[in-house]
Amino acid sequence: MKKIALINGANLNRLGVREPEIYGSATLKDLENSVVSLGKELGVEVSCFQSNIEGEILNKIAEFADGGFYGAIINPGAFTHTSVALRDAIAGSGLKFVEVHISNIHKREDFRHNSFTAAVCEAQICGMGFEGYLAALRFLAK
Amino acid sequence: MKKIALINGANLNRLGVREPEIYGSATLKDLENSVVSLGKELGVEVSCFQSNIEGEILNKIAEFADGGFYGAIINPGAFTHTSVALRDAIAGSGLKFVEVHISNIHKREDFRHNSFTAAVCEAQICGMGFEGYLAALRFLAK
Amino acid sequence: MKKIALINGANLNRLGVREPEIYGSATLKDLENSVVSLGKELGVEVSCFQSNIEGEILNKIAEFADGGFYGAIINPGAFTHTSVALRDAIAGSGLKFVEVHISNIHKREDFRHNSFTAAVCEAQICGMGFEGYLAALRFLAK
Amino acid sequence: MKKIALINGANLNRLGVREPEIYGSATLKDLENSVVSLGKELGVEVSCFQSNIEGEILNKIAEFADGGFYGAIINPGAFTHTSVALRDAIAGSGLKFVEVHISNIHKREDFRHNSFTAAVCEAQICGMGFEGYLAALRFLAK
Amino acid sequence: MKKIALINGANLNRLGVREPEIYGSATLKDLENSVVSLGKELGVEVSCFQSNIEGEILNKIAEFADGGFYGAIINPGAFTHTSVALRDAIAGSGLKFVEVHISNIHKREDFRHNSFTAAVCEAQICGMGFEGYLAALRFLAK
Amino acid sequence: MKKIALINGANLNRLGVREPEIYGSATLKDLENSVVSLGKELGVEVSCFQSNIEGEILNKIAEFADGGFYGAIINPGAFTHTSVALRDAIAGSGLKFVEVHISNIHKREDFRHNSFTAAVCEAQICGMGFEGYLAALRFLAK
Amino acid sequence: MKKIALINGANLNRLGVREPEIYGSATLKDLENSVVSLGKELGVEVSCFQSNIEGEILNKIAEFADGGFYGAIINPGAFTHTSVALRDAIAGSGLKFVEVHISNIHKREDFRHNSFTAAVCEAQICGMGFEGYLAALRFLAK
Amino acid sequence: MKKIALINGANLNRLGVREPEIYGSATLKDLENSVVSLGKELGVEVSCFQSNIEGEILNKIAEFADGGFYGAIINPGAFTHTSVALRDAIAGSGLKFVEVHISNIHKREDFRHNSFTAAVCEAQICGMGFEGYLAALRFLAK
Amino acid sequence: MKKIALINGANLNRLGVREPEIYGSATLKDLENSVVSLGKELGVEVSCFQSNIEGEILNKIAEFADGGFYGAIINPGAFTHTSVALRDAIAGSGLKFVEVHISNIHKREDFRHNSFTAAVCEAQICGMGFEGYLAALRFLAK
Amino acid sequence: MKKIALINGANLNRLGVREPEIYGSATLKDLENSVVSLGKELGVEVSCFQSNIEGEILNKIAEFADGGFYGAIINPGAFTHTSVALRDAIAGSGLKFVEVHISNIHKREDFRHNSFTAAVCEAQICGMGFEGYLAALRFLAK
Amino acid sequence: MKKIALINGANLNRLGVREPEIYGSATLKDLENSVVSLGKELGVEVSCFQSNIEGEILNKIAEFADGGFYGAIINPGAFTHTSVALRDAIAGSGLKFVEVHISNIHKREDFRHNSFTAAVCEAQICGMGFEGYLAALRFLAK
Amino acid sequence: MKKIALINGANLNRLGVREPEIYGSATLKDLENSVVSLGKELGVEVSCFQSNIEGEILNKIAEFADGGFYGAIINPGAFTHTSVALRDAIAGSGLKFVEVHISNIHKREDFRHNSFTAAVCEAQICGMGFEGYLAALRFLAK
Repeated sequence: MKKIALINGANLNRLGVREPEIYGSATLKDLENSVVSLGKELGVEVSCFQSNIEGEILNKIAEFADGGFYGAIINPGAFTHTSVALRDAIAGSGLKFVEVHISNIHKREDFRHNSFTAAVCEAQICGMGFEGYLAALRFLAK
Repeated sequence: MKKIALINGANLNRLGVREPEIYGSATLKDLENSVVSLGKELGVEVSCFQSNIEGEILNKIAEFADGGFYGAIINPGAFTHTSVALRDAIAGSGLKFVEVHISNIHKREDFRHNSFTAAVCEAQICGMGFEGYLAALRFLAK
Repeated sequence: MKKIALINGANLNRLGVREPEIYGSATLKDLENSVVSLGKELGVEVSCFQSNIEGEILNKIAEFADGGFYGAIINPGAFTHTSVALRDAIAGSGLKFVEVHISNIHKREDFRHNSFTAAVCEAQICGMGFEGYLAALRFLAK
Repeated sequence: MKKIALINGANLNRLGVREPEIYGSATLKDLENSVVSLGKELGVEVSCFQSNIEGEILNKIAEFADGGFYGAIINPGAFTHTSVALRDAIAGSGLKFVEVHISNIHKREDFRHNSFTAAVCEAQICGMGFEGYLAALRFLAK
Repeated sequence: MKKIALINGANLNRLGVREPEIYGSATLKDLENSVVSLGKELGVEVSCFQSNIEGEILNKIAEFADGGFYGAIINPGAFTHTSVALRDAIAGSGLKFVEVHISNIHKREDFRHNSFTAAVCEAQICGMGFEGYLAALRFLAK
Repeated sequence: MKKIALINGANLNRLGVREPEIYGSATLKDLENSVVSLGKELGVEVSCFQSNIEGEILNKIAEFADGGFYGAIINPGAFTHTSVALRDAIAGSGLKFVEVHISNIHKREDFRHNSFTAAVCEAQICGMGFEGYLAALRFLAK
Repeated sequence: MKKIALINGANLNRLGVREPEIYGSATLKDLENSVVSLGKELGVEVSCFQSNIEGEILNKIAEFADGGFYGAIINPGAFTHTSVALRDAIAGSGLKFVEVHISNIHKREDFRHNSFTAAVCEAQICGMGFEGYLAALRFLAK
Repeated sequence: MKKIALINGANLNRLGVREPEIYGSATLKDLENSVVSLGKELGVEVSCFQSNIEGEILNKIAEFADGGFYGAIINPGAFTHTSVALRDAIAGSGLKFVEVHISNIHKREDFRHNSFTAAVCEAQICGMGFEGYLAALRFLAK
Repeated sequence: MKKIALINGANLNRLGVREPEIYGSATLKDLENSVVSLGKELGVEVSCFQSNIEGEILNKIAEFADGGFYGAIINPGAFTHTSVALRDAIAGSGLKFVEVHISNIHKREDFRHNSFTAAVCEAQICGMGFEGYLAALRFLAK
Repeated sequence: MKKIALINGANLNRLGVREPEIYGSATLKDLENSVVSLGKELGVEVSCFQSNIEGEILNKIAEFADGGFYGAIINPGAFTHTSVALRDAIAGSGLKFVEVHISNIHKREDFRHNSFTAAVCEAQICGMGFEGYLAALRFLAK
Repeated sequence: MKKIALINGANLNRLGVREPEIYGSATLKDLENSVVSLGKELGVEVSCFQSNIEGEILNKIAEFADGGFYGAIINPGAFTHTSVALRDAIAGSGLKFVEVHISNIHKREDFRHNSFTAAVCEAQICGMGFEGYLAALRFLAK
Repeated sequence: MKKIALINGANLNRLGVREPEIYGSATLKDLENSVVSLGKELGVEVSCFQSNIEGEILNKIAEFADGGFYGAIINPGAFTHTSVALRDAIAGSGLKFVEVHISNIHKREDFRHNSFTAAVCEAQICGMGFEGYLAALRFLAK
């Protein structure tokens, strides 16, 4: 059975609490449940992880890489725009990554238009809300 | 019944012919068929259009806007990076647009990282091949 | 009798339809009528043209140049910011051009502050709505 | 009766003296007379002011704002490109400003293409000589 | 009773040890004591926190936000110039932040002139030493 | 008795009149009174000065420097972002300066993020309204 | 027999008419004749095409690619500096392109120094007038 | 008898007082005396002027231009780097200007390396102390 | 006996696992052993530390500083290019640092050419593989 | 008889030795022979020169200028991108220069896209191998 | 026996004479002796060369390449930052280069942070004084 | 007796030959004679040197430094804008340099506005023709 990781980065534990007018009122738990649930439907096993600490995400990616995972859905949050270390961890993992952003980063501040991580991912989706995660999972499940 | 347009821009009539090692061997016709077909499944009507002439796309967007369309999937091709006129046409149409790119533009030349159109679209997907179009349709069909 | 062209570019056929809160509810037809009408008053003949296709505007400018026109009022729309070809056509025409923008482009996005065409026009007016066209005509009619 | 100010900035007292091959041989007095005279025709009262001292212009704008003026025509001269203080004075005045330049600033040095003040004015006209002032007055008189 | 957090970021645990000729010989403990003590005087409760780990600060801000705090004094240290995640945490917390720097960052290297966090804080103070923290508390206590 | 100057620059004579929704309804007189009054409390003599003319401020700073002043609170207004001459006057005066801005300049346009004067002042405070002036005085009074 | 296309872009139909002091008085027809004529001499078949409409050039390149052509001489005119779509069409055609400019683009405005298309062509010649086309043909005919 | 103006700008009234370790202990009066005195020797009449107010310098330049002056030595001080208005006044005066700086501006901050005024002066001298003024006078006296 | 720290940053725990074609197949353990072993030979004591968490490295540097260490060899990994906090920790430690990179960072992406930390280290070595660490140790051991 | 110089700059003595997969296996001697030989055919005398020392090329250009030469073919090698002195020598020689590059510099690193010398040459050819030199000679021989 | 070249560029003949407080008092001769001497120890033959003339270094590198050398240690001095020709000579030589700088170039002016040559060398060492040369030799000797 | 060197760089051997409309018709010999001659008058010994080869100038500066010279007048020609090596040679010589340019470099192309050498010279003079050299000598002779 194919194993896919779901990784959420900086401040995404605050989903449903932080600025609901932008990010909606559903929580991280809701998000993880809907991805796991679609995973079951598609016959893939989904493991969820969230951390606000960049280094913990690096560690976890290494663990996923060693654990025989096929790919990962990642929303690095603000680390997208600042973390070369995350880029290296993704590139070095050998996994297939899809980067997801809940909002359309191109409508936001200039410093959010650049992504260090997108170039080492397979694909990128932004602006589709939680739907983006599900579309990423369908893509990786094929 | 919801009406969705599928708009392909510069050089996308060459799909399956141009650089198949990058873009695959399926043709524009194949792509349009698979989107129309998913549209039927989801109960939405899909109208397809392709042109290499920027101004014809502006005209067609105006026509779709007047024709009661709900939204559009657009892959502007290279116009993504150069056309302010297309940006204005999208912004002025009142339709919900999703921008799609077959390849991951973040892995390519620097001048392809910028998109004039993404900021006036609802969402953007890149790097998922034809799957990107289908994910966009599912998003608009909701 | 002096001949003056009135040339409108990208998306200006959508006047009165597109974003009326910005551009007002009067249409391109209304605009053309008011310019032609002022032309009669001032004793100049005004010929109107609009296209969303950059190359058609190049062709038309050549035609005006060959047709003994004295000058032209041009609102290139978004081509203002991207078209070197239009700049060349204007510079090569031998006609006196006045560039007009309905809105104040300096209040808008950064990429609208630059104009490829202004440097080869005689004058530029922005932010005066339709009045800008009339002021341009009065200037050329002298 | 509507009151409109006519404000000329740096070096414009030298009109007709300084570089007549660029600016023509008419003087500031000539310019002011023709604007006041058109004002009478249009039924608006025009008050003229010129200074080479940026801070005096700030003071005068405040005075106009307190004096019940409706709007102002301003040619800031070189202050256009360097004065944030002037921008603030215009923005804070509550008056409707039209920025005018005698020559086409887009044909000149790069540092003259940027305007700090245009974004807080209603409109901008350049390259039409004295005609630009008259067109501005007609616009404000409506 | 109003609750105010005092958050110190990267390397501020080294106060009094690191480069005393720049930062003085007083320690973080001294600083916290003087802020808490002024808090008592002003009738506000001050909670202190310091970490060198960016993600722990994100977590703590979330905790303060959930714990009914009114505002926070933050000296992010070097995170000021690099952390978009911290900016997001501040913006999403709903708390009133005042950013403080012990030294005048404008006298230092260019890369210290930019602050990602200042734009989402209410105010910023730099160069006043420990006094800056006290001024911030007085401001928040009102 | 310590002497401290209070210097306000461009457009600050319009406090309470200009854009009260940003700057509040209190006037420059109110501001000066509250600083002078706190000065009395702290046992320092405060001399107030405001001008819209950059050169007059240079002259006044020289006068304060010759007059045995200890320091100065300065809000240069828009001169902050454009005046190298003011920077030189401050640096050459031998006085201790604290730069104050009523609003948070980091939330405003990009060209307001840079300060020519901050690097030659002892400290900078922004976003605390009139409170910023009082905090500056307390700092200088020590 | 080897087939070579001769493609002229924006405004080149105006050769001999537009700015003869820069481009000479010979017409596009003259140019095409001299290239075709040299082609006969060298035993290659030359097909000529000119358009002011970028998209028509894209279409024609695709047609040449499908028509068994060996290579093409292209003077994209102003599209050189702005058209990513043209770059893609050239790169995707599988034909050998030589880019030609009549004048020396390095002596002209800065925005003419950059070429989007040169990097996907085999070679580039500029400043040799019509001779440049003939040199390109000789190169491709080998 | 040839008439030459000596113009000193921002903060140069503070010579001998401001930062003597950089600028020496001689005063503006000393400087003016030595230039006037050399003028007598060379048979030219020197008129001295200093102001901290940019606009007064503009006015004075106009006055010198009308007064039959042959040329001017100018040290604009910090206005060198910020005043387009001064540039225009120099360019429009018809006088021959030599720009002088007491210190070597190339050894100082980056923002002092650029000069708006040098391009419209005949020559520029920096780093030679008062000697620079004398060298400028000898040059103009020829 | 001289004490030297060996600090490895982001993703260096993956040595021998991550991209062995770039970094070789030896592990972090192998690296640490060879440095410790050379240390013994040279009569210096080497303490090893690795973390993916930037803040833990800051803490450890402080600890080394307090523990009487003479210097440190540091390979910050990707933190090199993004961490101002690490720069500050190094600068504030009072230790002598040598920065080492296994690969030649100048052959890689542009964003890897810049180093925040190199300027506060004594020396930098890149491209020499594990040899770089040994060379650094020899340098510090003298 | 017309005299034409053939000048090759930095590292071109290594033709056929250095990186033959890029530059081919023919040597500088081969190149010079084929140009001289075509010269005979066209009735022009060709003088060859190569040096790795920039200043020797400057000297030689002066010599050619004094020696009654009509023009020169120059491949400055890497000096193209760095030598203002070479630019000045070309501009000051009064000779007609054609700049040639064996490879297509637009396909290479960014710093090779800029040419200091092209703007003072008559024409530029790149990417045509040795053919480029021959085309240049034909052009100059007319 | 392996042959290694030692190449020193601009101004390095002045070692021990020029700015000894930065570069130490040892001379170039001392440096060369210590490298040759270590070479003997390691069983490699070291040939030394220094020139202030860039082109002579190009010539010498070609000579080393033809002479069967294995690699080279190079300190290009200031040519590091300006010479594309040197970069090409290194890249084209087929030898293994290690770039060495005596001082830490990252602590110096911005224009010394960029290296044209590092990207075509195997490794780079800076800031270790003469030790850097010895470390480079040990690396190449393996 | 004080010894002063006169150093002329790239292309200055062409004075009076190269572009006399810019540089005048006097030759290098004329220039050197007039400087030597003024030297005699002022009681200083002037030694002249010119080379088009950057490295020869470095060598000569070292020689002057060893030869007990007090200072030097240098016109590096185009090396001004590109030679870091020359900057280093000047800085390392211990001599007092004055940089001279015959024309006003601020009126010329942008790339001539920057000087690598000015920051390590005592002073800079441009635009005064040969007079600039004489003024430099008078300055050094004091």
